[in-house]
Amino acid sequence: MSAAPTVETVLQGQADLKEWQEGVYRDLHAHPELGHQETRTAGMVAAELRERGFEVHERVGGTGVVGVLANGDGPVVLMRADMDALPVAEATGLPYASTVRTTDADGHEVPVMHACGHDVHVACLLGAARLLAGARDGWSGTFIALFQPAEELADGADRMVDDGLARLVPKPDVAFAQHVLAYPAGTVGAHPGPFLSLAESMRVTVHGRGSHGSMPHLAVDPVVLAAMIVVRLQAVVSRELPPGEFAVLTVGRVAVGSKSNIIGDHAVLELNLRAYSEETRSRMVAAIERIVRAECQASGSPKEPEFETYDRYPLTDNDPAVTARVAAAFRAHFGDAVQDYGRQTASEDFSAVPNALGVPYLYWAIGGIDPDLYRDAAARGALLEEIPGNHSPKFAPVIEPTLETGTAAAVVAALAWLAPSGQDGDTSSAES
Amino acid sequence: MSAAPTVETVLQGQADLKEWQEGVYRDLHAHPELGHQETRTAGMVAAELRERGFEVHERVGGTGVVGVLANGDGPVVLMRADMDALPVAEATGLPYASTVRTTDADGHEVPVMHACGHDVHVACLLGAARLLAGARDGWSGTFIALFQPAEELADGADRMVDDGLARLVPKPDVAFAQHVLAYPAGTVGAHPGPFLSLAESMRVTVHGRGSHGSMPHLAVDPVVLAAMIVVRLQAVVSRELPPGEFAVLTVGRVAVGSKSNIIGDHAVLELNLRAYSEETRSRMVAAIERIVRAECQASGSPKEPEFETYDRYPLTDNDPAVTARVAAAFRAHFGDAVQDYGRQTASEDFSAVPNALGVPYLYWAIGGIDPDLYRDAAARGALLEEIPGNHSPKFAPVIEPTLETGTAAAVVAALAWLAPSGQDGDTSSAES
Amino acid sequence: MSAAPTVETVLQGQADLKEWQEGVYRDLHAHPELGHQETRTAGMVAAELRERGFEVHERVGGTGVVGVLANGDGPVVLMRADMDALPVAEATGLPYASTVRTTDADGHEVPVMHACGHDVHVACLLGAARLLAGARDGWSGTFIALFQPAEELADGADRMVDDGLARLVPKPDVAFAQHVLAYPAGTVGAHPGPFLSLAESMRVTVHGRGSHGSMPHLAVDPVVLAAMIVVRLQAVVSRELPPGEFAVLTVGRVAVGSKSNIIGDHAVLELNLRAYSEETRSRMVAAIERIVRAECQASGSPKEPEFETYDRYPLTDNDPAVTARVAAAFRAHFGDAVQDYGRQTASEDFSAVPNALGVPYLYWAIGGIDPDLYRDAAARGALLEEIPGNHSPKFAPVIEPTLETGTAAAVVAALAWLAPSGQDGDTSSAES
Amino acid sequence: MSAAPTVETVLQGQADLKEWQEGVYRDLHAHPELGHQETRTAGMVAAELRERGFEVHERVGGTGVVGVLANGDGPVVLMRADMDALPVAEATGLPYASTVRTTDADGHEVPVMHACGHDVHVACLLGAARLLAGARDGWSGTFIALFQPAEELADGADRMVDDGLARLVPKPDVAFAQHVLAYPAGTVGAHPGPFLSLAESMRVTVHGRGSHGSMPHLAVDPVVLAAMIVVRLQAVVSRELPPGEFAVLTVGRVAVGSKSNIIGDHAVLELNLRAYSEETRSRMVAAIERIVRAECQASGSPKEPEFETYDRYPLTDNDPAVTARVAAAFRAHFGDAVQDYGRQTASEDFSAVPNALGVPYLYWAIGGIDPDLYRDAAARGALLEEIPGNHSPKFAPVIEPTLETGTAAAVVAALAWLAPSGQDGDTSSAES
Repeated sequence: MSAAPTVETVLQGQADLKEWQEGVYRDLHAHPELGHQETRTAGMVAAELRERGFEVHERVGGTGVVGVLANGDGPVVLMRADMDALPVAEATGLPYASTVRTTDADGHEVPVMHACGHDVHVACLLGAARLLAGARDGWSGTFIALFQPAEELADGADRMVDDGLARLVPKPDVAFAQHVLAYPAGTVGAHPGPFLSLAESMRVTVHGRGSHGSMPHLAVDPVVLAAMIVVRLQAVVSRELPPGEFAVLTVGRVAVGSKSNIIGDHAVLELNLRAYSEETRSRMVAAIERIVRAECQASGSPKEPEFETYDRYPLTDNDPAVTARVAAAFRAHFGDAVQDYGRQTASEDFSAVPNALGVPYLYWAIGGIDPDLYRDAAARGALLEEIPGNHSPKFAPVIEPTLETGTAAAVVAALAWLAPSGQDGDTSSAES
Repeated sequence: MSAAPTVETVLQGQADLKEWQEGVYRDLHAHPELGHQETRTAGMVAAELRERGFEVHERVGGTGVVGVLANGDGPVVLMRADMDALPVAEATGLPYASTVRTTDADGHEVPVMHACGHDVHVACLLGAARLLAGARDGWSGTFIALFQPAEELADGADRMVDDGLARLVPKPDVAFAQHVLAYPAGTVGAHPGPFLSLAESMRVTVHGRGSHGSMPHLAVDPVVLAAMIVVRLQAVVSRELPPGEFAVLTVGRVAVGSKSNIIGDHAVLELNLRAYSEETRSRMVAAIERIVRAECQASGSPKEPEFETYDRYPLTDNDPAVTARVAAAFRAHFGDAVQDYGRQTASEDFSAVPNALGVPYLYWAIGGIDPDLYRDAAARGALLEEIPGNHSPKFAPVIEPTLETGTAAAVVAALAWLAPSGQDGDTSSAES
Repeated sequence: MSAAPTVETVLQGQADLKEWQEGVYRDLHAHPELGHQETRTAGMVAAELRERGFEVHERVGGTGVVGVLANGDGPVVLMRADMDALPVAEATGLPYASTVRTTDADGHEVPVMHACGHDVHVACLLGAARLLAGARDGWSGTFIALFQPAEELADGADRMVDDGLARLVPKPDVAFAQHVLAYPAGTVGAHPGPFLSLAESMRVTVHGRGSHGSMPHLAVDPVVLAAMIVVRLQAVVSRELPPGEFAVLTVGRVAVGSKSNIIGDHAVLELNLRAYSEETRSRMVAAIERIVRAECQASGSPKEPEFETYDRYPLTDNDPAVTARVAAAFRAHFGDAVQDYGRQTASEDFSAVPNALGVPYLYWAIGGIDPDLYRDAAARGALLEEIPGNHSPKFAPVIEPTLETGTAAAVVAALAWLAPSGQDGDTSSAES
Repeated sequence: MSAAPTVETVLQGQADLKEWQEGVYRDLHAHPELGHQETRTAGMVAAELRERGFEVHERVGGTGVVGVLANGDGPVVLMRADMDALPVAEATGLPYASTVRTTDADGHEVPVMHACGHDVHVACLLGAARLLAGARDGWSGTFIALFQPAEELADGADRMVDDGLARLVPKPDVAFAQHVLAYPAGTVGAHPGPFLSLAESMRVTVHGRGSHGSMPHLAVDPVVLAAMIVVRLQAVVSRELPPGEFAVLTVGRVAVGSKSNIIGDHAVLELNLRAYSEETRSRMVAAIERIVRAECQASGSPKEPEFETYDRYPLTDNDPAVTARVAAAFRAHFGDAVQDYGRQTASEDFSAVPNALGVPYLYWAIGGIDPDLYRDAAARGALLEEIPGNHSPKFAPVIEPTLETGTAAAVVAALAWLAPSGQDGDTSSAES
């Protein structure tokens, strides 16, 4: 790879920023902020970017921050990190564990924790920004560092887009994002095509007719109605979708009635759908609506059911050409540590940004688990039991080599476009 | 009926107490108290009984009151009224409507309303006590007026029994209670044998294994488990019990999960059972436990289900001989206004008192609805739609002739035992 | 009872006909005939009636026989016996057990057995006819002996009516039928009001879309559809009908698909409904149709479901006045052997005859089980296990006192109308 | 490809055998034989092989035929064709359509049709055998042509193995089979790894307790039990298996009861399972057994359920190295006509042969549909509606280029091993 010399040049500075970067990470981890409340994080990010010479836009889509580092002619690369934390009570026992509590959007006081690793993403992107800014001779083009709020609320990316992101930045040639997952720290995974499922939630309200529990004949029992719907919905995945097609239809919540001897007048079901294609999603949605309506009729429901869609996540569908190019760059730098983690069942709103900008993208993952622990647990077939995953109160990426890997990955990918010469440095091959 | 002259003698005073009694009723209605909080009502009741010469026991089983009026040799008759109200926000628009709010046993502030008519029962029993106390020449024996707390909580009668009721009063020859229902005011109904169903509630907790909504294969889905249980339970009544046997199995509440994309780790179902025989009840309970355990196994549930029984109401099973005797006395006094309302699906804890004392009993009902309104609604087949029943926020018995009827019924039934001579005045015929 | 002397006079001849009657019974039992094939039975019946002086009509509604014995002025009494047997292979081990096999209406060779006791009914009615014919001085009026085909096929009574029964006989004042059941021989039961349920069967065909078993997504799976319908139907009895209302909804047959790896294109469900009121029946039918149609929609069924009703049996609803009059006559003759067996879940087409003629009726039952066996089994709670009931291959009424009781019951009931004098002999009191 | 000259040399003869081969095909198609009845086909095959110089073994595993053509040193290649037809009434309207009827293994007279295209397989393998036999100079090694009975019955391959196949033939280096599918004629598809699912059928018998339809409380209703099992089984695929894992669980047949008003005493369910891994299969089997047992307990079933497995098909899991080598040879010969049809949901017993012999294998597919028809239907999204697939009574492969393609494919694949020189002609690279 002719690009390698440039990469190594830029990454030379990595050893020097380690102490600073780990401090940033510990600070972020100890001060998590819920979605749309990331003011402290955003302030720190904006200050750092300005310090490094980026043109900085703040309060994009609320608390979002965008930094643009124009460095001569050449490709434009956007890399995104998400900043928000989760309402989870940290149970890692780490010295830098969060004890933060805050008031959420519903007015409840909740604990807050970086249980999904967005603090890793922020620290890595800041590190990459510092490295690229510090080695401007080694590349040419424009690097955009985008810090997004509220990924966990499914609307942070959309809000940045809606707030005029396209007018703030030059159109990128490619967009990147990364996520730390429960794989061995030091490894990197880039999967072409659909990588993270699209997802959406649906709140279904069906109506019965209330009565005293002793007089079912005067009622339309919403408990029976809800149960039949749940049962019926199982056949959507088992019978209506092609075998082997990825599709999840989870009814996560059912709430009917208030006490044993009163027949209530409605039921609420909260569903979550996941798929790797819009066609599968729309077939599921159509099946759900058909089944719910029919079961209401079977019950003699007095009122039409209601459907409310929320928390929609788009499909994360990595561009094959981009993936191939980045994977080649990764292999040149990381060697055997490059893996294909395969499709993940989780979802992300990142792709809303490149989709809005009309740009091909790659969303890759890095491992965050101590490699020895991982190997041991895997050998005993106990990965799921012993390695706390994302969203667990015990999710605790090891700081290194996680930060080092994520920072290098961001630089390597960016330089696959930004490097001044060689096959990796031109924009034309994005179409190949 | 040779007893008639005595009855009419005692009831002569009824016209004179009307104003007082209606005032008592309005006051009670405007000041409802939840179960075990009936201190104001109990205080008023105790004062009135003392005023009329009853020996009064207060704080029996918490807020219960028992008055004993010994009036020479002869039978002992016990009559019970329940005092508690419900956490319902009154919507009758009556001038004496309740606006009371209080803190319930769980610490929540709730509205309170006499939505079940216990204020009628108290006012009638106080009126009957005053009439019997004011006409001691007309009868001989002992009259016990028992004012019970917390019927709606299913434990008021039990608490009075547990608190030593049997030691406070002479053993009765017969026990009575009455309830105002949504039938025409002025009518009285006495049904021999099972009249009110036995009932109990059961809280069933079943265990799944939680997971993210995108990974059902790592979970044991409690939503599917709960739905299958609900569906399966329908076949208990439809298939396992003899056709035509009264049996109700209502699942009033189902609560599973907290949000759409998280698979929870347990489900709670709250069931209510009703029957007219212990055999049917125990068959239902056995079927529920068998089905729940098996469905847990079908789901691969990691933990045994839990069953908690609460709010148990005994069967109200009127003694046929007592019923016949009272019905004859009712017919002598009320004529055609005596009806057989037939079995009711509701439940009551009154029978715990006579069962504990080893006494035959009758629980009768009186109508409380304006007869013209009732007739009109019945003619249009609109009774259920237009006549608010017990527990409705609009339940509003007409004061008269409801109080007059309930008061006279109590006196007539008591005198069927207490009258000094004639076939209705001896205790021997209770066995007839 | 002033009628008693007449009854005893007529029944004097009973001892003399015993040998003949038991011979007739054994012959009938050994030569059972399926519905609409009762030619041998009908021939024997017609010959006997003619011998006794009845005016005889044969081939009424196919194989039906009607005998009319006019004996002066007075009431007209009709009594019916059904003649058909069942496609059951007898396993009683009796010396006169059936070994008959025949070809049924569908062309299949089947075994035949009097497994429902219609041979008892025929023998008893022939005995009563002989007794009444032999004691014409003891009564006055007209006695009609009606021998009906095909009760088990639900259309024998209708066919006799449709074939002009009303033109063949004078209008009766009252109509009777009786059935031998698994109660102690020697006992008689007469229940006022609804005694046997109305019943009907329904064949429901629902449509899916066939496919190979490996391609469920191309199919509309009729197995899942049928299962959901069965499950849903359980809630009709458990939730839609008033608790305690007699209602049975049995799915007796489900047939879907031909082999494991082919998804079929339709499902057939055969349902049986029973109720004691037309209202309940029609609510069940409406619920079934609503549920089936809705479940077809939930499945995305490509074609409307089909409903075919068959084997309809009317309600057997005994006239209270007729029942009271006959019960009084029974008690005068049988004393304590008169019982109230209570409502039966079975069904009968007899009432089609009195309904068509506009006549009040009583359908009573007689016991057929050895009283000692019955008592023993009952004491051990083993009635259902040890006493073979109607339609069992082991159903074996003891000949005596079954025939004696059934014959006497027919005579006693008839003479409650036909006796020349006294309160039991006039027609006016039928309205009482 | 250095092998190409040899291939073309051997295939030179293809034009000359067309008339003969098409005649063979039409004859086979017009004379289909059910599994284990392929005597006419086997006789014709054996005669032709002998004619071409093969050493022939007949009656291997019943009606199987194996021909061995030893042609000097070198690799041993086995190719298999299946010979049996299906009990389907042909509806193609072709001039050479089958009108054959025969008696199947159950003694029923059934129609017979080559509805799965095995006649194509036989004709192609005979053609390839003739070409290879006629061009022995062009290759070196041994070619085994194996004609298998009863693929549709899942036991033809096993029977040949059990009958000592390994002793009759030299151990092959590689084994092949092909199948005509509903893709455009002229195309060839070779998919590495799992290509056809493993499958098995399971007959589940569950026990209830019979009763009259009017007495459900005396029964354990097998209709309800069967319905609950069907409903519950839907959650195996929807909840218990990883999303995206190929798994089919079809209940193809349900049979319960004989008529509407009798509650039967058992239910039979016939299931079909398909998967691409043994782990998935065994998870499904365990889930089925767990669910069926638990549902029997939920019903109070009086007897353990019974499970009978039949029609087991192994996984067809193409060796990646073999696939790569053949695919390269295909591309050299067929160019763009080589496709990857992707995984098929169908199943095959072919792999039992190479598995028993310990040989890597490739099972490829060829198209059989007129390319113009296919293109038109595809353009209108009407492939499934308009193009009759395998097992359809209208399945009608076009004779050409289907036979030409299948014959050439067999020769090309064989010569990828048998060709005397070049990288495709040695055995060593099978391990690559």
